[in-house]
Amino acid sequence: MMDVKLINPFLVAAMHVLKTMAQVDAKPGRPFLKKDDLAIGDVSAIIGITGAAKGSMALIFTEQCIKDIASNLLGEPFTELNHEVRDAVGELTNMICGDARRRLAEDGFILQAGIPTIVGGKGHTITHIASGPCLAVPFTTSQGSFMVEVAFSGST
Amino acid sequence: MMDVKLINPFLVAAMHVLKTMAQVDAKPGRPFLKKDDLAIGDVSAIIGITGAAKGSMALIFTEQCIKDIASNLLGEPFTELNHEVRDAVGELTNMICGDARRRLAEDGFILQAGIPTIVGGKGHTITHIASGPCLAVPFTTSQGSFMVEVAFSGST
Repeated sequence: MMDVKLINPFLVAAMHVLKTMAQVDAKPGRPFLKKDDLAIGDVSAIIGITGAAKGSMALIFTEQCIKDIASNLLGEPFTELNHEVRDAVGELTNMICGDARRRLAEDGFILQAGIPTIVGGKGHTITHIASGPCLAVPFTTSQGSFMVEVAFSGST
Repeated sequence: MMDVKLINPFLVAAMHVLKTMAQVDAKPGRPFLKKDDLAIGDVSAIIGITGAAKGSMALIFTEQCIKDIASNLLGEPFTELNHEVRDAVGELTNMICGDARRRLAEDGFILQAGIPTIVGGKGHTITHIASGPCLAVPFTTSQGSFMVEVAFSGST
């Protein structure tokens, strides 16, 4: 399966889940191959993928963006990155990865996922150690920006 | 399978891989249940796990500790957290997770693993979003300290 066929469902899933669960319109920017780490994240979620391909997906949020998404998702305002916001990021990650896996399964491409791990810390960096390329797609919302990254290393 | 039977192989694997690959003696401290994030990491590796249980393993290093381990592993001194050090952390993570999976497979407990994702950034926090407990074990070496964390959410 071509990389783009493997990556696109994750982008569609991110838009779909944010729209339906948090009423957030996310507009994708130009995808790029990530060469090295970029210090862009205040909160990130990482989830491991196995099955027909092994890899990882990361969602990398600015602080304002994720606070506003979590506020929409849970229906109450959040002014700090607390335990509830991290749990909300974990839930979003499970939903986005699950939605992408369902879309891929329709093409007979079966993936499993681990559990989300949430990273906090201003301006942290994320590097995927994959034998294949890491594709990164920036998204903008009215609440700020976030990045979806997907990297694969071939089959398990 | 009891939690401890699932967790112990990861601790044994961490000690075994660091000893054989990097000539580092790692001494385990008292395991504890991680309640919330703790800002202890300068470099972390996260790898997703699926199969008989789904979860994630994190290795969380202080900067001095991982620079010294990478120097031993690769046979050249590292004074900064560069691309080679991050690759070395990824390799260590694959080896430790693989060694733990082999030990568990001997008991008929079959796990798959995704690819390592490396997090950089002074004092970042790591939170596993699991339905089960997250067990954390601090290790000390002559080069500094690191933490092994394993969290599981039941079967996939």
